[in-house]
Amino acid sequence: MVKPDFDSATTAIGTPNIAFIKYWGKRDDSGLNTPNNSSISMTLDETLSTKTSVLFSERLGKDTLYINGDEEPIEGGRISEKSAYLKRILDHMKRIAGVDHHALIVSENSFPSGAGIASSASGAATLVFALSEALNLEMARKEMSITARQISGSACRSLFGGIVKWRAGTEKDGSDSYAEQVFDSSYWPELIDIIAIVDSSKKRVSSSAGHAATVKTSVLYGARPAFAENGVSEIERAVAAKDLNRLSMAIMRDSNNMHATMLDTWPPIMYLSDASKDIIYKVHELNESEGKCIAGYTFDAGPNAHIITSEEHRDRVMETLSEIDGIRETIESHMGGGPRLLGEKDCLIDEAGIAPKNSNTRKE
Amino acid sequence: MVKPDFDSATTAIGTPNIAFIKYWGKRDDSGLNTPNNSSISMTLDETLSTKTSVLFSERLGKDTLYINGDEEPIEGGRISEKSAYLKRILDHMKRIAGVDHHALIVSENSFPSGAGIASSASGAATLVFALSEALNLEMARKEMSITARQISGSACRSLFGGIVKWRAGTEKDGSDSYAEQVFDSSYWPELIDIIAIVDSSKKRVSSSAGHAATVKTSVLYGARPAFAENGVSEIERAVAAKDLNRLSMAIMRDSNNMHATMLDTWPPIMYLSDASKDIIYKVHELNESEGKCIAGYTFDAGPNAHIITSEEHRDRVMETLSEIDGIRETIESHMGGGPRLLGEKDCLIDEAGIAPKNSNTRKE
Repeated sequence: MVKPDFDSATTAIGTPNIAFIKYWGKRDDSGLNTPNNSSISMTLDETLSTKTSVLFSERLGKDTLYINGDEEPIEGGRISEKSAYLKRILDHMKRIAGVDHHALIVSENSFPSGAGIASSASGAATLVFALSEALNLEMARKEMSITARQISGSACRSLFGGIVKWRAGTEKDGSDSYAEQVFDSSYWPELIDIIAIVDSSKKRVSSSAGHAATVKTSVLYGARPAFAENGVSEIERAVAAKDLNRLSMAIMRDSNNMHATMLDTWPPIMYLSDASKDIIYKVHELNESEGKCIAGYTFDAGPNAHIITSEEHRDRVMETLSEIDGIRETIESHMGGGPRLLGEKDCLIDEAGIAPKNSNTRKE
Repeated sequence: MVKPDFDSATTAIGTPNIAFIKYWGKRDDSGLNTPNNSSISMTLDETLSTKTSVLFSERLGKDTLYINGDEEPIEGGRISEKSAYLKRILDHMKRIAGVDHHALIVSENSFPSGAGIASSASGAATLVFALSEALNLEMARKEMSITARQISGSACRSLFGGIVKWRAGTEKDGSDSYAEQVFDSSYWPELIDIIAIVDSSKKRVSSSAGHAATVKTSVLYGARPAFAENGVSEIERAVAAKDLNRLSMAIMRDSNNMHATMLDTWPPIMYLSDASKDIIYKVHELNESEGKCIAGYTFDAGPNAHIITSEEHRDRVMETLSEIDGIRETIESHMGGGPRLLGEKDCLIDEAGIAPKNSNTRKE
């Protein structure tokens, strides 16, 4: 193993993924984020991305994390559940690497502020990738995927580009629950995700709490895992055949199915807004007028729509979306290639190696 | 059997009911409206009502129906599914009574125009009751209930006052699928339904079409019938004990459960609006602040909320509702006693016996 250069920072970029078949519902309370069903997603390109710089240095007195310019506590009493996992993972990776220097981690999202687009998958995947590189751990992507999964379930899919499948696995310790690439990002380059941003209000229920509540209380949830497993196979077949009609249908059905189990949760979880519903109706109308599905909507734990379509139908889809009042902004993304290293000029840590270059002002 | 006076009109009044455990999903395509699960409801008082006058006379050249001042075709090619059933039922009842005169039927709803409150249960129940009386059929309420069910499923419950249970039954011909009173309207006189009207837009999917689509396409629906059957028993126990906490909980869970199966239908059926969701969240907050449920929301096939509570909590509930922007109007109803006959002064047919008193202008 090459000895890492602990005084020079490592910088990486990673991206979110949009699930075609969703992860909703954990197998147990282990904190390992092992899911009840497999899921499959498209990794997005760098239109939306997270950049993360990591520096290990003896000059640092403690582990420190900055996200979007603000320090995020990762030690002590009042830290978030995610930060606690992150600290555990940092300690774990340092132990494997035999490193006892403290770390400075600086992470920034390019996402439009308040866009309500989940940054946790992008953030956790990029962090694990950057840490592994900074510590010269030479981890296989599979190991990175397992590690990222423990910070934020769907992050395990953002370690790969293209179309990515997360096998649920069956082992209690989560050792067989990781993602892998099914098709690389060049397989279907015309496929696009048009993100329609409709709302910036804060979620009422964190998705982490929701996962547990649905499994425990929804009467209808029992039918979901098997339906989702079938959905994953259906998506694989649809992508293999580049069959947009089949792909769109499976994507829409799964999104509705997941949100239905959320509504049946006690107390109910409701992410779809009037604007989301307008988008759903309009996409159905568009597909009906075409006599087949040329676009499919899908919603994560929020009201923003992801419209999956292909380049040849972009104009029709954009025209359809333009008829909807509640859309604030649209963002288009192709498939991306997964996380990669960046050069020194992209480093987010100042020259003294003790603080972010741009601390402070990012947040409004 | 006393010979009916065919030249003097019969006038009756009936009311809607609000289901605590919902009817959603038919057993088959027979057109008999036999449900997959039993349901239970509260018949409302005459705050919202339907008045119906019926006249059989040899002076009439055809069967004619007026609803809210407008003639509704019940014969010929371009009539609604409901009108076709209604005509079949009229013919059937005339046949049993041995009457071949034509009928003039005039029906008016007191519901606020465009309130989006289902008038079909109230209308069909009142019609069957009025026809049976006009024809001196001396039908048992059970028979009236079976007859009304075929026009509009949930109408079978509006033939009775108080808390009414519709047993799903198992017979293919629907002969054991009818409603009966479980508690009369004086059993729990403090119980109220506060109807919060939020929207007047037209339904995207008629509930009749939705019933069939959910059973055929929803992956999650399979768990609903057994859940609803348990819910009916739970409601019976809660009402018997006048336990508002238990009653409210069961009501809310069933409403969410039904709307979840609707969302999982293909294409999806979505009746809850942003205002509906605000009401749901606010009722949960209210109940949490009380440490028990003092109110329960329920939604039929539309965005208007019915908040079930008791008189002692009315002010708290109204205060909670006043914090919600999207509510246009509230209407309060106690339990009602079911359909009854009215006197001559309420007759909706003109003195000549050939037209409504107030044809024309009711509709805006």
